Amino acid sequence: NGMFDHPEFRGHEQVVFGHDRASGLFTIIAVHDTRLGPALGGCRMWAYASSAEALTDALRLSRGMTYKNALAGLDLGGGKAVIIGDARSAKTPELLAAFGAQVDRLGGTYITAEDVGISAPDMEIVATRTDHVRGTRATGLGDPSPYTALGVFCGIRAALRHRFGSDSLEGRRVCVKGLGHVGMDLAGQLHRAGARLVLADIHKPTLEDAAARFGAEVVAADAAHAADVDVFAPCALGAGLNDETIPQIRAGIVAGAANNQLAEERHDEALRERGILYAPDYAINAGGVISIALATPGGDDALVRSKVEAIDETLTRIFERAERLSLPTQQVADTLAEERLAAA
Amino acid sequence: NGMFDHPEFRGHEQVVFGHDRASGLFTIIAVHDTRLGPALGGCRMWAYASSAEALTDALRLSRGMTYKNALAGLDLGGGKAVIIGDARSAKTPELLAAFGAQVDRLGGTYITAEDVGISAPDMEIVATRTDHVRGTRATGLGDPSPYTALGVFCGIRAALRHRFGSDSLEGRRVCVKGLGHVGMDLAGQLHRAGARLVLADIHKPTLEDAAARFGAEVVAADAAHAADVDVFAPCALGAGLNDETIPQIRAGIVAGAANNQLAEERHDEALRERGILYAPDYAINAGGVISIALATPGGDDALVRSKVEAIDETLTRIFERAERLSLPTQQVADTLAEERLAAA
Repeated sequence: NGMFDHPEFRGHEQVVFGHDRASGLFTIIAVHDTRLGPALGGCRMWAYASSAEALTDALRLSRGMTYKNALAGLDLGGGKAVIIGDARSAKTPELLAAFGAQVDRLGGTYITAEDVGISAPDMEIVATRTDHVRGTRATGLGDPSPYTALGVFCGIRAALRHRFGSDSLEGRRVCVKGLGHVGMDLAGQLHRAGARLVLADIHKPTLEDAAARFGAEVVAADAAHAADVDVFAPCALGAGLNDETIPQIRAGIVAGAANNQLAEERHDEALRERGILYAPDYAINAGGVISIALATPGGDDALVRSKVEAIDETLTRIFERAERLSLPTQQVADTLAEERLAAA
Repeated sequence: NGMFDHPEFRGHEQVVFGHDRASGLFTIIAVHDTRLGPALGGCRMWAYASSAEALTDALRLSRGMTYKNALAGLDLGGGKAVIIGDARSAKTPELLAAFGAQVDRLGGTYITAEDVGISAPDMEIVATRTDHVRGTRATGLGDPSPYTALGVFCGIRAALRHRFGSDSLEGRRVCVKGLGHVGMDLAGQLHRAGARLVLADIHKPTLEDAAARFGAEVVAADAAHAADVDVFAPCALGAGLNDETIPQIRAGIVAGAANNQLAEERHDEALRERGILYAPDYAINAGGVISIALATPGGDDALVRSKVEAIDETLTRIFERAERLSLPTQQVADTLAEERLAAA
C-alpha cells in the first residue's frame, strides 16, 4: 500500500520527501490544506525509528495545524515538517541549511517555524536559505510562550463565564499541571487575578519555588487531574485525558495549554458525559501560533494580543453550540474549523 | 518501511505526493537530481494498480532522466511525474489543470512534458497553470519523434564506424523492429542512406506499406531480433534484450530507439560477452528530450539538430572507453553521466 492509501492521509495537498546528499538531510514536509493561505506549521526534529513513523507524525500534525489555524481565524493553512534524526547528535548547520533549501523549493506553499528539537538559533540558519520562516529575530516577537499563556488565561475566563455566569477568578481554585514556560506564565496571571492555585510539576525545585511565590498548594503530578478545584489546566505532556483519569477528575472545567490532551478522539464524549466543560486544546492553546503568524519585524504586540484575546469569543461560541446541540466541545471545534475551510 | 528505505530510492532530492480534492488528482512528482539544472522529465498517466506501484515507476524513471539529460549534455536534471488513473476514462481538464498547479508549486524545480497517456492538447491545459512546461505550442518545435529518429540514425553511424571503420550505410542490412513515429522515420532515413531494410511490426497494414515504400523484407515481430543483419534497431517496447533473445541475435550491433531495452542491468554484460556492440538506449534515443529541452518559441531547428547530431560523438566516446576497459557500454554510459554530475 502507498501514500494515498495511508490511514493518516486525509486529503493532504502535498507530501514532500526531501533529501540532501551532502548533509544527509532526510525530511518530510506535509502540506495538508492551503484554502485559507500558505500552510504554517513548525519543524520537528526527532529520532524516528523509521521514515514510516516520521510520515505518520507529519500527516497527523499537518492536519492538526489546518484545524488550529482555521479556528484561530488566521489566513493560513496547515502544514508540518519533520527532520529524521537525533537533534542532539545529528543536527549540523549544513543539515539545517539544506532543510531551508527544501522549504524554499516549495515557493511559499509551506512556512516553517520552531518545534520540538529545533531552537531559535537553528531557525536563524534555516532562514539563511529561505524567507518562508516565521519566529526568527527578523520576523518575530520572540518567545511565543507568553502569548500561549495569555490565550489559555482568556480561555479559562470564557469557560468560567459559561459555567458560572462570571469570569472572575477571585477565589476560584485552579490546578496547573506542568510549570514550563507556558504553565509558569499562566500560573502568574491566574495568581494576579486572585485565583487560589494548586500546582504540580515533576521538577521539585521549580514546583517549590512557584508554590512559594504564588502562595500555592502543591500536588503530585500523577494526582493533579484529581485535585479538588474548579479548573484543571493541563500544561504538560499530552494524552492526559484518558480512560483512567477522566472518571477521577473533580474539576468542572478542563482548560489548559497541553497539546493532544485527549488520549483518543472518543474521550471528548467521555468528558461531556461526566458534565465536564472541556476547552478543546488546539483552540485554547493557539496563542503561540497566532503570535508567530501575525508577528512583523519589530513586532506589533497590541495586534497580536487582541487576536489572542479573541480565543475567548471562539471558545464561547464552541461552548454555546456544544450545549445547544448536546455535542462534545472538540467535535464542535472541528466543525467550526471545517465550516471556515469550506467557505474559503 | 518508508520512502527513504524504498529499494528504488537512490538519493532523490524530492519526492512529492500531490493531491487535489476537487478534481480527484493523485500525482507523484519525483525530482532525482538538479545538480545540472531544473529536473526535466515527462508526465505519464497510467492506471497503476496501487500508489506503491506508481511510486516505483516515478523513482526509477526520474533517475533515468538524470542520466539521460546528463549524458545528452543538457544543463538539466532528472525528474518524472506520474498521474494515477486511466488516461482514457479519468482524464479531465480539471485534473490536468490541477496537475499544472502542482507543478507550479515546485517553482521550477521540475519541468514537465508529454509522456505515455498525456497528449499535446493535454499539455496545453497543464500550461494554463504553470510556465514550467516544455513541448507545448508556445515553447516547442512540435513532435519530438523526428529528432529522436535523427539521433538514432547518427548513433547507428557511430556504431558502424566503430565496428567497421566506415559509417556508410550503403548496402548495410538493418532490421528495424517497431514502425511507430520514430521507427518509421528512422527506416526512411536508413533507406535514403542506402541501407537494405528488414522490417517488423505487429500492425500488418503499416508493415506492408513500409515494406513496399522502402523495398524492404519483412520478418515476424517475435523473430526480428534474430534477423541476419548488421544492425538490429529495436524501436518498439522495452525489455527486448533478455536471456532468451540475446543468444539468438545475429547482428553485430544493437542500436535502436526503444526505452529500457535491457530486461535487467546484467544484460549489458551478456551482450558484450557475445561480442555485440550495444548503443545504450538512453544515450542513443536522447534526440527527443534534446528537442524538448532546447526548443524555443518559434523553434531553432538548426541548434537542436546540431545537439542531436552530437549523439554520434557521445556514443563514440562510450564505445572507445568500453573497448579500452573491457566494460559493457551501458555501464560506461552510466559512468560518463555520473562524472558529469559529480563535476557540476
